[in-house]
Parts: sequence; structure tokens; C-alpha cells
Amino acid sequence: MPATYETHRAQLKAILLAWGMPEDNAEVTADVLSWADLHGIDSHGISMLPRYNQLREQGRVDLRAQPAVVRETPVSALVDGGRGLGHVPARFGIQLAISKAKQSGMAIVVVRGSAHFGAAGYYTSLAADEGLVGMACTTASVAQVAPTFGKQAKLGTDPWSFAAPTSGGRPFLLDMATTTVAAGRIRNKANEGLECPPGWVLDREGNPSTDPLVTREKGGFMTSLGGSPQNSSYKGYGLAVMVNILGSCLSGAALITEASAHAKTAQAHDIGHCFIVIDPAVFRAHEEFEDDVARLCGDLRATQPADPDQPVMVAGDPQWTTADQRRRDGIPVGPGLLDQVRRIAAASGAPWLLG
Amino acid sequence: MPATYETHRAQLKAILLAWGMPEDNAEVTADVLSWADLHGIDSHGISMLPRYNQLREQGRVDLRAQPAVVRETPVSALVDGGRGLGHVPARFGIQLAISKAKQSGMAIVVVRGSAHFGAAGYYTSLAADEGLVGMACTTASVAQVAPTFGKQAKLGTDPWSFAAPTSGGRPFLLDMATTTVAAGRIRNKANEGLECPPGWVLDREGNPSTDPLVTREKGGFMTSLGGSPQNSSYKGYGLAVMVNILGSCLSGAALITEASAHAKTAQAHDIGHCFIVIDPAVFRAHEEFEDDVARLCGDLRATQPADPDQPVMVAGDPQWTTADQRRRDGIPVGPGLLDQVRRIAAASGAPWLLG
Repeated sequence: MPATYETHRAQLKAILLAWGMPEDNAEVTADVLSWADLHGIDSHGISMLPRYNQLREQGRVDLRAQPAVVRETPVSALVDGGRGLGHVPARFGIQLAISKAKQSGMAIVVVRGSAHFGAAGYYTSLAADEGLVGMACTTASVAQVAPTFGKQAKLGTDPWSFAAPTSGGRPFLLDMATTTVAAGRIRNKANEGLECPPGWVLDREGNPSTDPLVTREKGGFMTSLGGSPQNSSYKGYGLAVMVNILGSCLSGAALITEASAHAKTAQAHDIGHCFIVIDPAVFRAHEEFEDDVARLCGDLRATQPADPDQPVMVAGDPQWTTADQRRRDGIPVGPGLLDQVRRIAAASGAPWLLG
Repeated sequence: MPATYETHRAQLKAILLAWGMPEDNAEVTADVLSWADLHGIDSHGISMLPRYNQLREQGRVDLRAQPAVVRETPVSALVDGGRGLGHVPARFGIQLAISKAKQSGMAIVVVRGSAHFGAAGYYTSLAADEGLVGMACTTASVAQVAPTFGKQAKLGTDPWSFAAPTSGGRPFLLDMATTTVAAGRIRNKANEGLECPPGWVLDREGNPSTDPLVTREKGGFMTSLGGSPQNSSYKGYGLAVMVNILGSCLSGAALITEASAHAKTAQAHDIGHCFIVIDPAVFRAHEEFEDDVARLCGDLRATQPADPDQPVMVAGDPQWTTADQRRRDGIPVGPGLLDQVRRIAAASGAPWLLG
């Protein structure tokens, strides 16, 4: 039986508390992680716990870290994450950007000294919930992507998220890695014994491959969105560099091209995030803007589908549908992951709530 | 003999003046168009003249239009383009955003009532020239792209540009359609009698095709970046919607999903642009930021290439190389296009300078 959202969230919080994370940090971190699981972004929720546990055991994250504002203006802030996990400084950052945008019309907050922050869409959806347009991105700590024409990993999955409120209630919510696919989709092909479609991965010589083991076991690489030079992978690559300029160069966080040489050592993370928030009311009444976004999304959903069984959606639709269903039916966790989490809970003395 | 940059630019301006465009508008428009040709973005320079001439003859653009600020705050402005061509209001918009960002730290300017503005990278490069980070995007007047899973054209090529200054002098400059490839690359395949690679185009039923005539003559569609659902075309599609939200929903310009039904009628254009400018100095000294961007770009260029004859580049590199070469050797214009431009010049009484 999948646990309810509330139980799932309570389990996450219980483990974080048992790790010695202060109450307020655990509350925020559990909220971000369980949001991802509720919305079907399974790669960024409870499945991250084994990885976070490893970082904790290696002493690479300070679970007591509190974000601090280093510099600010009415439209901007530079935040230091204090080398904890990324969720707390990231939520601090987007909330600061929201509050400044409400005062000033728009704002940008960048964070340095941070780590993995979960699903980028969590943060932009907070802006949309307030009637604002939100953008979010984060750099990565592990280089897995070869730039177009290259055969060395130099970039991460470097996600970009954009959200806008609609009068229909549910925001337009784009949350995308700038790679062709997420690492999890490649792993799934390997688990099923299937080939990857052309365009997903490169071998260690930088040549196209369909071997799903090539990236993890054979020195190969993930591709940038586009998948190949002829299909414009320079665009996905360029977007990834944009994410690194916004996340790391603006904030002064480590450059992945320099950090990646050390990524597997015990040093602290120093990745960067960027949050941009815009109040549409500087241009038009909120209702006018939200009506137009709703009409645009409605017109797109009304597109004749190539396959009648596969309707056209807009970004966010699959997530809202999954969230409705999981609020009703609970949040499924596969047996292998559930077992890992159970062992982590037991080892840290956390109560076991997932049944 | 290709004409020099100066002569090429003078020819463009002479034709615009002969069309009755005022001196200041012709100066700006010729600057934007000749920048594209100088930088090798041949699809957005002098090759647009026949199209602009058509719009003019149909009475769909007011060449005397002057942009007007409708609403503004210290960090924002809504500009009405006055239903002329897009270059003048777009340059007005980015310059206003630059000036506000220098005062306030960041700014956003959106433009409505506009038309085709040329190459998006022209505008962001103006921001980078001032030591600022620039973003630019524009909606389109013609729907050519079917949303993922769809078989109706609902979106345009919806370009996105991002530029950042570097201490090396030449900015990082990304300028990309959110489609897999530009329409011109599909046309080139048709001209050469070649198939398109898989992922570029869809037939009228929304199925993958490699026929380069499918989009222009057979009711088919361009694909969003990614090229197919399995290669994550929802990402390019999502970016295109982002561009439409920023360009049209914020400004109140026409929605392409509603305008496209009328795109071939004689009504005026009403497309929208969005410009966002950020001053890195709100976070760090300009030099620190620009040094980091230069190091990041340098590290990426130093990536081992898969093919030693094809070095790894960063966005903008091909354009700077072309501009150097064309400043030296002149700007080539193919005989077919040259002939069209000659006839347009003659018909409007403009002097002929291109030899």
C-alpha cells in the first residue's frame, strides 16, 4: 500500500531530524522532497535519500547550515548557502526573490555554497502561486555531459525551470534538464535490457551510441538537448552554459569545469542557483496576464493530436495529474528503494512510518 | 566581389530610406540587418528585404512608426511598437532595459504591436557590450511548429537569446530558435535534393518525416528542439511557450495561437518581444564575473574534440569568426538574392551600391 502524502512527508522529515538536521531545515527539506514525489518527479524526491546519506556520512554537507544574505539591493540578493544541502538556501532564495519582486516589480537572487536543491519546479511554482513569473536554475556537482563535438565530460544536467500563473488555477510549469533525457531514463533502459534511442548518449570517443551502460560504466557521456550536432545539440549545450553563468558566475560558486576534477573527493559542495521573479502587474493587470496564459495553454491543449489516445499537453500538466492521483491513492515507492530507505531510517534511529 | 560591410550597410539604409522610412529608423534598421549579415546569420539580414518589401506593399507595416513607452517603473517598461517593423522598437526596448539595469541592477522591457526584429543576438550583444547579462526573445507572426503529440501548427520558431560579457572581450552569445533547426536549413536540403535527418520535420498527420518539402508544400510542421517525444521535444516546445508568455502574455501582444488564423491577411502585425538585463555588479565586481565567464568558456573550448578537425566551441564563436572574416573580405550575397534586392532597389528608386 503506498503511503499517503502526509505519511511520506513525515517519514522524510523523521529521517532528516534523526540525521541531526534542525527542525526548520528538516521541515523545508521534507517539503521540497515530498513535493517532487507527489508530482511524479521520482528522481528528485525520496530516491535522493541514499545519496544525501552518503554526502552526510562523508562530511560533505553541514545539515545545520543556515543561508545568509551576503549582499543585497531592492531587486537582488547574493546568498551563501553555508555548504548544507541545497533545499533550505534555495527556498530562502526564491522566497526572498518573491518578496523583493512584490516590492520592486522584479528581482534576482543567486545562491553560492550550496548543493543539490531537488526539483527546480518546486521553486518556480512558489512564484506562480503568488501570481508571479518565476525562473530557476542550478549548476551541478558532477560533470556527465560532453559539449557538442567534445569527448570529455564538462557540464552537468543543468536544469532550467520557468513557471507562470494562469487564471485556470494551475500554472504553466516547465522543469527540464538541458540534456536530451534525465540520467534516470538511461538507467531504466539498462534495467530493462533495452537500447537507448539514437541521440541520448555518446561513447567515450564522443561517438553516438545506443548502449545504456555507456555513460555509467564505459566512460561515455550524456548528450545536450538536441542529441547530435545535426539536430542542434549546440542549443542544449548553450542553455547549459547559460545555467552555469547564471548559477555560478553571477554568484561566485565553483565552476563545474574546475570543480569536476574534484567531484569525487570529500570536499564540500559549492554549486550555485539563480532565481528570477517578475511581477506581471508592472505591465498589465494580473487577471489580464493570467487570462492570456490560460488562453494560450488552452489553445495548445486543443491542438488536434496525431494519436487520438495521446492528447497534446502543456508543461506541468503531467505533474498536476500525477499529484491529483497520488493525493488520492498515495505515493508509490519501489521495493528496492523502500528497502534502502528502511535501512537508512534504522541506522539513524528514525521511526519507520512507511509500513 | 562581396561588398564591404560599410557598403552593404549603406545599401540597406538606402533602400529603407527610399521606402520612406525616416532617417533615424533607417539607421537603426540597417544596423540590425547588417549586423546579422556580418556575423553570418544570413537568414536574418539582407535576405529579409523581399519579405519586408511585401509587408510594406501590403500596407502591413508603418515605416514611420515610433516606439512609445506605455507604462514604466524603475525596473520595467511596456513599449508599444506602433505597428512598424520590429528593429526600431526592439532596439529602443533593449536600450531602455540597459539604462534601467545600470540604475537599478536589473530591468525588464516588453514590447507589443511590433513585427520581425531580425536576429535576437543583436540585442543581447548590446547588453554584453555594456558589461551586462542580456536575455531577449520574440514571438512570431506565422505558426509553423506543431506542439509535441500534435498535428496542427500552433507556435513559431520563437527564438531565445542570452549573452554575457567576458574578460576576453567577446561575449558568450547564444541565439537559438526553439525549433530543432531553422527553416532555412530545411530549405537548403530541398535545394540540394537531400533528405532531412530524422527529427527535423513532421508530415501533416504529425508523423516523423525526412521529406524537406513536407513543411512548405505538404501541410507538415517543424519540430520543437528535441525533435521527437522520445528525445524530449517537450523541452523545446516548453521553451517556445515560455517565449510566448514572456513576449506576448506579459506585453498584451496577440497570442500566436489566435493570430495565426489571420496571419496571411492584411492586418498589421502584433507580435511581442521581451528583454531582460542584469547588472552582475549587484553580486560581484564586474571583473570577477567576466573572468569567471571567460574561464568557463575557455575550459569548454579546451575540451578534447571527438574529431581533431572540429574543435569544441562556445555559443558566439562561429559568429565572431565569421564577422572577422567578413570585415576583411566583405559580405557575400548569393546571385539569386542579389538580383531580388537589385530589383527592389530599382523599383523604389534607391541607388545601387552593391556592384
